[in-house]
Amino acid sequence: MDVNFGDVAAAHERIRGVVHRTPVLTSATVNARTGARVFFKPENLQRMGAFKIRGAYNALAQLPADAKKRGVVAFSSGNHAQAVALSGNLLGIPATIVMPEDAPRVKLDATRGYGAEIIPYKENQDREQLARQISVERGLTVIPPFDHPHIVAGQGTAAKELIEDAGPLDLLLVPCGGGGLLSGCAVAAKHLAPGCRVIGVEPAAGDDGLRSFRSGRIETVSRPRTIADGARTPSLGRLTFALIRRHVNDFITVTDEELLETMFFLWERMKLLVEPTGTLAACALLQGKLEAAGRRVGVVLSGGNVDLAWAAEQRLRRR
Amino acid sequence: MDVNFGDVAAAHERIRGVVHRTPVLTSATVNARTGARVFFKPENLQRMGAFKIRGAYNALAQLPADAKKRGVVAFSSGNHAQAVALSGNLLGIPATIVMPEDAPRVKLDATRGYGAEIIPYKENQDREQLARQISVERGLTVIPPFDHPHIVAGQGTAAKELIEDAGPLDLLLVPCGGGGLLSGCAVAAKHLAPGCRVIGVEPAAGDDGLRSFRSGRIETVSRPRTIADGARTPSLGRLTFALIRRHVNDFITVTDEELLETMFFLWERMKLLVEPTGTLAACALLQGKLEAAGRRVGVVLSGGNVDLAWAAEQRLRRR
Repeated sequence: MDVNFGDVAAAHERIRGVVHRTPVLTSATVNARTGARVFFKPENLQRMGAFKIRGAYNALAQLPADAKKRGVVAFSSGNHAQAVALSGNLLGIPATIVMPEDAPRVKLDATRGYGAEIIPYKENQDREQLARQISVERGLTVIPPFDHPHIVAGQGTAAKELIEDAGPLDLLLVPCGGGGLLSGCAVAAKHLAPGCRVIGVEPAAGDDGLRSFRSGRIETVSRPRTIADGARTPSLGRLTFALIRRHVNDFITVTDEELLETMFFLWERMKLLVEPTGTLAACALLQGKLEAAGRRVGVVLSGGNVDLAWAAEQRLRRR
Repeated sequence: MDVNFGDVAAAHERIRGVVHRTPVLTSATVNARTGARVFFKPENLQRMGAFKIRGAYNALAQLPADAKKRGVVAFSSGNHAQAVALSGNLLGIPATIVMPEDAPRVKLDATRGYGAEIIPYKENQDREQLARQISVERGLTVIPPFDHPHIVAGQGTAAKELIEDAGPLDLLLVPCGGGGLLSGCAVAAKHLAPGCRVIGVEPAAGDDGLRSFRSGRIETVSRPRTIADGARTPSLGRLTFALIRRHVNDFITVTDEELLETMFFLWERMKLLVEPTGTLAACALLQGKLEAAGRRVGVVLSGGNVDLAWAAEQRLRRR
């Protein structure tokens, strides 16, 4: 099991015309503040509001015909659920999503809106177990959220587009949850811009990636308390960890308070709504967690699916 | 005094590399909801957060050398102030801005941040008069907010880019305050896509453009009460009115309540922070004010400079 640049390029062909080629955005304010030339890849402007559609579509499109007919199942309370639901819809593949029964109604509605069947689970149930059980009973293919080569290759197309559009980079900052986006982007970046340092960014409370990177084995942080809900995954996967060890140069962590500050900065100054997890990489840069002056820096804003009322409340508390 | 497509094309050359070429964004949700193919031009992602830099830079860049040396003055509480301040900064031209003494601190700070001198005025003072007085006393060139061919030609580059990037349009919807953006975009659209219907969109409370368009003479609505602060201009200008009569096909109005609803839709579904005035054109489309099904529709989102705390408060009131 491996992912190389050829896989990313093939994934890019597969998703063309279906997944948005999001733009590259720059900000004179950010450049002045960091002394760097910064290129943002705003995947919050992606279909369904996050990069996840890249990997999900790439995986579903490659299923054998009979598996497509039977359908797929995914477990997720977040963007992966919507990505699998939308990809299923676009490819005519029935999708079943195992979601927490208390998931925000906006997410339930969006997932159902894409025509997926939702199977709710209670907080004390093992969702992965439940999904595998449904998979066996109904003959559905499980689409994992990150630890699969087709998912990783799909996510890597974000960095491929960024470097194609912005030109070579000295640094690439990528949010890290399960490591699908980070490992895929690292594969693409190291091929297209070999001298580029690739940095994963995690919430301080959920720094399993950093710990794993340092110790050389997969470390677990269970139920980390952080507003970066997309980075609450307890650990990297086997594939993503192997790729990260090979291609990623370092990890950085940021606090929830720093994340909020950056989230409002992106809102107010760049007019972009970015969810806390999607803000991780920008936060590392804007909070001065690394030396960027004089460098060409890529920053992946990975998604924008945040509850607007929650975000509005947070903003008002800060006055 | 006229503006033709050659002027827009020349302006486009002049602003290249300084002003962002903002992307064109699409939304499957919007397409499904309207039955149209909709292409958004998000000028909220423009430098200083609005299209105004296009016209201001184009005007300042064409000043004679001695006028550049003496400097410029503008009267504005909004985006034009920041556009003139930033353009002055970029071109090394001293800028003086006449602003209300109670303008939001964020705007005062931004304008000062670009190195402009701010001259505050009281609510009962005539700001235009004050600006002209300062102009004479100090030998500064007044940069009007919309009624000047260089301003109009600059604003038209937004539609030029949109049509170049999205392809021909059947309909183009543009917010209208003083008519600089609308008339410039109409000039560009009628040249690049002659069959394109160009529609101006105004707040219902400030429908001077619509009235003028219907009556054939410049009508005034003084101090309209609307959250679309960029469209509180009492009337079109002579130049913008003449161009609008020649190139614009119709006007549509929307209420503040409709504007807010669309503003939150753009926030929540497209992850874009757009100010109320910037939302006008999208609002006309999304509120079903015109038949768009089967058409290729361009929508200019003209700016994103809204007070985030205010917007957050508005959002929380709607739960």
